[in-house]
Amino acid sequence: MTFGKLYLIPVPLSDHAAAASFTEFSRQTINEISEYIVENEKTARKFLKQAGLQRPQSELIIHDYGKHRRGEVPASSYLKAAKEGRDLGLMSEAGCPGIADPGAEVVAEAHRLGIEVVPLVGPNSILLALMASGFNGQSFAFHGYLPIDKGPRSARVRELERESAQRNQTQIFIETPFRNNSVLEELLKTLDSRTELCVAVDLTGPTEQVVSQSVGQWRSGQGKSFKEDLHKRPAIFLLHAHKQPKR
Amino acid sequence: MTFGKLYLIPVPLSDHAAAASFTEFSRQTINEISEYIVENEKTARKFLKQAGLQRPQSELIIHDYGKHRRGEVPASSYLKAAKEGRDLGLMSEAGCPGIADPGAEVVAEAHRLGIEVVPLVGPNSILLALMASGFNGQSFAFHGYLPIDKGPRSARVRELERESAQRNQTQIFIETPFRNNSVLEELLKTLDSRTELCVAVDLTGPTEQVVSQSVGQWRSGQGKSFKEDLHKRPAIFLLHAHKQPKR
Repeated sequence: MTFGKLYLIPVPLSDHAAAASFTEFSRQTINEISEYIVENEKTARKFLKQAGLQRPQSELIIHDYGKHRRGEVPASSYLKAAKEGRDLGLMSEAGCPGIADPGAEVVAEAHRLGIEVVPLVGPNSILLALMASGFNGQSFAFHGYLPIDKGPRSARVRELERESAQRNQTQIFIETPFRNNSVLEELLKTLDSRTELCVAVDLTGPTEQVVSQSVGQWRSGQGKSFKEDLHKRPAIFLLHAHKQPKR
Repeated sequence: MTFGKLYLIPVPLSDHAAAASFTEFSRQTINEISEYIVENEKTARKFLKQAGLQRPQSELIIHDYGKHRRGEVPASSYLKAAKEGRDLGLMSEAGCPGIADPGAEVVAEAHRLGIEVVPLVGPNSILLALMASGFNGQSFAFHGYLPIDKGPRSARVRELERESAQRNQTQIFIETPFRNNSVLEELLKTLDSRTELCVAVDLTGPTEQVVSQSVGQWRSGQGKSFKEDLHKRPAIFLLHAHKQPKR
């Protein structure tokens, strides 16, 4: 018997973004799969509907490996269907499974079991922000979240700036949306005025905005600014520092 | 007068991948734009056709900023249309403009000129490979090409392995396709047997394959192997090392 495949299915980053997020092939694949491994059953069902799922949702088998379940059930148990010849879909709550989101442990287990893994094209906020920043895309690093406490956070920002200059590397990080304003404040206080800073919010959504300019321009108030407050909006932060910033 | 926007349009990574690459919104956007900035006019016209361009190609204005032209013409001259109120599209030869591909300098200039930049969802081999590897997607770095000479190349591979272990960071790099086999050989010779190594080839194409396993498994010949020779096929290499590899 041939094993089923594990399809990695990116989902929209914002509401009203289905047309900008799904490809013809991802919509088709969704209509051929009846069993899913998802980070959150409720949002997963919403995404499947947005993607144009034709079969009744009651016919689907959905394994929820969300926050409260992870670790309790081994990843291999979710993959049983693939070992029995049926295809499976993996979805997270936004963007690509396993990238700044859970899911990688399920993919790793699929490889261990010899199950073929098929990544589908779709939205990812890190990549969209990098493309839109105009910063170096030949060398970049994504670091997840900054430390929460002020001291370590400032130190980390300075470290990322130093490394960006030394390596000519774009540094990318995220923050829980209710801390956006305090992180932006921290960045503008800590970074060299010549360092380039990009903030991309609500990517693919109707209120999407990408502001990319030097820290000096951010500070002066003469550069671009956000049309609406950043607070609680999904944001990606990117910086690119020039060699040997003067301090 | 309102400025036009600069749309960043990802293009397919392989032949016969249009349905897996374009979203409804990207196809629609392509049909609303009549002026493009592209890395290669010939392939750009092919992609526009694959995306379902409805207007005659003879009506398009295409600015080619390929290898031989870059540097000769300032990026700002390509962006004139946007300053005059018309939308523009930016495309590279594969995947996302500006990511492991030229284009970032055009985006940076758009920001300087106050032109709104809109990144569209589409294929990117780095992101697809990372998602499919099962490696850490909370922290990762893309480094472009390895050094060509043997000595520096081995040293770089060891450095990436060390950094991956220290930072719990997935390390990603590419190679010109005719060097794939020699790079894989180098990796299997140099890396610790417990380090995880993923090679993803022909992503989104009919011969796509993703092999992700420990270096020990790669070496033993008992793990997965490629159905066809790697030579000259577009490939992404990823590694993830465990803390304190024994040497």
